[in-house]
Amino acid sequence: MASKPSIPKGTRDFSPTEVAKRQYIIQIIKSNFEKFGFQPIETPSFENSETLMGKYGEEGDRLIFKILNSGEYVSKFNDTLVEFIRFSIIYHKDYLKKKNESFDMKDYDFLYKKNLATYLKSKNLYIFKDATVSEIELLDDVFYFILKRLKKDDLLSKADSEFDDFVKIIFADFYYELKYKYLTSYISEKALRYDLTVPFARYVVQHQNEIEFPFKRYQIQPVWRADRPQKGRFREFFQCDADVVGSKSLWQEVELVQLYDTVFTALGLNAVTIKINNRKILSGIAEVIGASDKLIDFTVALDKLDKIGEDGVKKEMMEKGISEEAILKVQPLFSFTGTISEKITQLSVLLSESEEGMKGVEELRFICENVIKLGLSNSILDLDVTLARGLNYYTGAIFEVAPPKSVAMGSIGGGGRYDDLTGIFGLKNMSGVGISFGLDRIYLVVEELNLFPETVTATSKALFINYGDKEAFYALQAIQKLRASGIKVEFYPDNTKVAKQFQHADKRGIPYAVIIGEQEMASNSYLLKNLITGEQVSLNFENLRNALS
Amino acid sequence: MASKPSIPKGTRDFSPTEVAKRQYIIQIIKSNFEKFGFQPIETPSFENSETLMGKYGEEGDRLIFKILNSGEYVSKFNDTLVEFIRFSIIYHKDYLKKKNESFDMKDYDFLYKKNLATYLKSKNLYIFKDATVSEIELLDDVFYFILKRLKKDDLLSKADSEFDDFVKIIFADFYYELKYKYLTSYISEKALRYDLTVPFARYVVQHQNEIEFPFKRYQIQPVWRADRPQKGRFREFFQCDADVVGSKSLWQEVELVQLYDTVFTALGLNAVTIKINNRKILSGIAEVIGASDKLIDFTVALDKLDKIGEDGVKKEMMEKGISEEAILKVQPLFSFTGTISEKITQLSVLLSESEEGMKGVEELRFICENVIKLGLSNSILDLDVTLARGLNYYTGAIFEVAPPKSVAMGSIGGGGRYDDLTGIFGLKNMSGVGISFGLDRIYLVVEELNLFPETVTATSKALFINYGDKEAFYALQAIQKLRASGIKVEFYPDNTKVAKQFQHADKRGIPYAVIIGEQEMASNSYLLKNLITGEQVSLNFENLRNALS
Repeated sequence: MASKPSIPKGTRDFSPTEVAKRQYIIQIIKSNFEKFGFQPIETPSFENSETLMGKYGEEGDRLIFKILNSGEYVSKFNDTLVEFIRFSIIYHKDYLKKKNESFDMKDYDFLYKKNLATYLKSKNLYIFKDATVSEIELLDDVFYFILKRLKKDDLLSKADSEFDDFVKIIFADFYYELKYKYLTSYISEKALRYDLTVPFARYVVQHQNEIEFPFKRYQIQPVWRADRPQKGRFREFFQCDADVVGSKSLWQEVELVQLYDTVFTALGLNAVTIKINNRKILSGIAEVIGASDKLIDFTVALDKLDKIGEDGVKKEMMEKGISEEAILKVQPLFSFTGTISEKITQLSVLLSESEEGMKGVEELRFICENVIKLGLSNSILDLDVTLARGLNYYTGAIFEVAPPKSVAMGSIGGGGRYDDLTGIFGLKNMSGVGISFGLDRIYLVVEELNLFPETVTATSKALFINYGDKEAFYALQAIQKLRASGIKVEFYPDNTKVAKQFQHADKRGIPYAVIIGEQEMASNSYLLKNLITGEQVSLNFENLRNALS
Repeated sequence: MASKPSIPKGTRDFSPTEVAKRQYIIQIIKSNFEKFGFQPIETPSFENSETLMGKYGEEGDRLIFKILNSGEYVSKFNDTLVEFIRFSIIYHKDYLKKKNESFDMKDYDFLYKKNLATYLKSKNLYIFKDATVSEIELLDDVFYFILKRLKKDDLLSKADSEFDDFVKIIFADFYYELKYKYLTSYISEKALRYDLTVPFARYVVQHQNEIEFPFKRYQIQPVWRADRPQKGRFREFFQCDADVVGSKSLWQEVELVQLYDTVFTALGLNAVTIKINNRKILSGIAEVIGASDKLIDFTVALDKLDKIGEDGVKKEMMEKGISEEAILKVQPLFSFTGTISEKITQLSVLLSESEEGMKGVEELRFICENVIKLGLSNSILDLDVTLARGLNYYTGAIFEVAPPKSVAMGSIGGGGRYDDLTGIFGLKNMSGVGISFGLDRIYLVVEELNLFPETVTATSKALFINYGDKEAFYALQAIQKLRASGIKVEFYPDNTKVAKQFQHADKRGIPYAVIIGEQEMASNSYLLKNLITGEQVSLNFENLRNALS
């Protein structure tokens, strides 16, 4: 391999400095998760495809990384395809032959229009007893594919001697118009984790008998998405999630807001904005404007109030088909200011006619009042009725965190409540509420604000210079004892030019060098050189240890 | 989905207790890696296939998890295949036609026997200018496939009207005898990391200009192998590697032995055995017995000395084709006992005729003497000439660590020196030496010996019982301050039966409950109940904090 190796687009190598900085953030998140009573779990990097597929919408399915089966992974698909082709051709031929001998044409038409597999089963004609859903669909498709392609005469005129070739021709044709979902389900049975929420739901259902509910879990692991890579968006990235499952108490929303505040305060971020909304408020607004299907258009337009002004927003809303009358009803939202308590009062007037909307108002009131009374350290709580993240997913509170205003960047965290977290895996009535921290963006914010402590990237405290094997042995005796005291020190492995060794310490950012020559060995001492000031001092071991502690 | 969800075979969910225990081990490994001057890097979970394929032998290639390309991933393969089939058929026909008009038969025969692509290129006939190596191989295969299948007369007799069907028939036939390496290289361009060594080598070459050598890096990340799952062998597991690249100094081997000793001592493991050998010793033995190709058979047999005795070993060696005369030459190895220094002396006699062997002896002597003089805390150093792990890979020292003798388990660590770590990626003369810790097995050993500290799995210190919203608010005021002091406490979110709440604390292993009723709120106090002894005591906040600290 002549050309320099590279990594797949959208992925990253992390250098020692980057790993240290990422670990610093993760450690703060982790320790606060634990302080709030969350416990760690880890799930496998890949799940069975059926666990993930269909959980994130069609676009999500496309973005899931699929893992190729081992071995002769295409042969089962090919065997099945050939079998289905043979079966379908023979079935057609028989049908047509019989038809010529006074057969019921309605039955044959039926085959054109209805599901073959169902029809065959209903007549007990179905030969593929163990067929899975995707096999039944494939058989249907093969059947119609052949019908579309062939005139009836063709079918009857094919001599038996040409049958095998005929099957092959259909096989090749079919491959060329392949629906990929069939092939994929045959050649791939596993897929990389797309987020941490679905694996968590799967975990809860699978281990429900071992779990003590309410279950507060956190999970910090990478996820993978086959997104088009772009600035700040990667194909492999970490998610940091804390969720509670098995309780509907709104005190959890209160604690989750506190958790955000605590973590961002610990990271030194001043005044992040924790935005809160409630899905029931949004449903209430939709009810009031009489257009549940326009809710997303509505919130998207309203969100632009700052940028395009009231008239601009109203214009956009009307363009999206929201009536002037409806817009008039929600007029208060265009001057939606004041304290949170004042905003809640405005909402309770606006939504007084909507039962669900009023339920949302009460939930918001409970959460916000308690958060405010308990007090936040550094963060700003903000009620934002345009906040609609994951609209189809959340059922109660919705959270999003914006970085300090001096940093131009999107949200650095988000979450909410979903009343039926585990329903997709058959366990009903499990309410969940959780928040997530966006590691990559938090990293960029902390970097931009220069908030990483210098010690984060600390390398070894001292480099012992190598003057040859005798000196090396003397050095390693000291190194061994220093390490036993928990001090990070290293030894330059080669007896090369001393200047090169000092340069190594310099490039690595190691602050001290320890020099050992004949004199030091004779006097049982160590020459400690401060590589920043250039100062050097001769010390006995105890003093050396103190100097490096 | 009706049936309970599951995870792919060979993968694992980790419960909170398991995560905590794994993290405890990883933290000890990590902190000692850093104490010894190693710096962390992280590489992507998947690499370009060409980075990994061909690096682990044929069996390794098979065990690498491949990731399916996105989109219509098969169409490029199908298009290429059809194009090659058309081209090959036309080429054959033309050739045969011309042959009938006095063409050189030798040329045609040539095509049967030699590489088509090369031949075409040499004659400037090659039409696929940008073809990759795998495409050229595919074209070759298609060409021979067609030749094998067809009589010359068939080819000539095919009417042009039948041409397309003929192509399709060949297409189907070819698919049925598909060599999977072709298809895989078209439909998969990425693969999951198989170990940490190859990605490290790739990292070093890719970032060589940013790296300050010698580079001491550690890496603790999962790897994936499509191995048949079995007890203690998983498809996803963590590797914990520390390597130095860019120096040949044997002091590094000395420090790596110390690193093993330090980590296992910190884990409380008494008397692990750090086995050491040297590839050059093994080569020397091979030279002495005059059978380099029998080296593996030889070491495998010798390794059974304890079990089957000297006669048994000799019998097995002879069965493997090693001559009696050769065995006689290495007679000392059958009574290879004594101190390490005595063993080295025996080896230096045995290998005196082999230059490479003697180099191995000197390396071993340097490493062992210095390790012994510097002293190990808890581990036993053992020179084991049967140790041959990764024979084709290592070029100098070979390490392996056996758990304490009371535990029946395979090696819990291993490593060695490889003189040409980065050569596979075009960067020559980079010697590397490293060791690895086997997390899963270490976990089992620490568990079996009951060495996990109780605090590892510590959950919250106290559960605040929920008696209703008023009490809850009072509780959360205290909780907020306790967490700010770094104390892990939690609040039961629902106002349910108190017995259920206490049961929750019990099941979760939370040692204290804090009870707040009207009396406590009135007197500004907290009732702290020790859930193990049943004792309860009324405390003001300061005393509560002290009690939970």
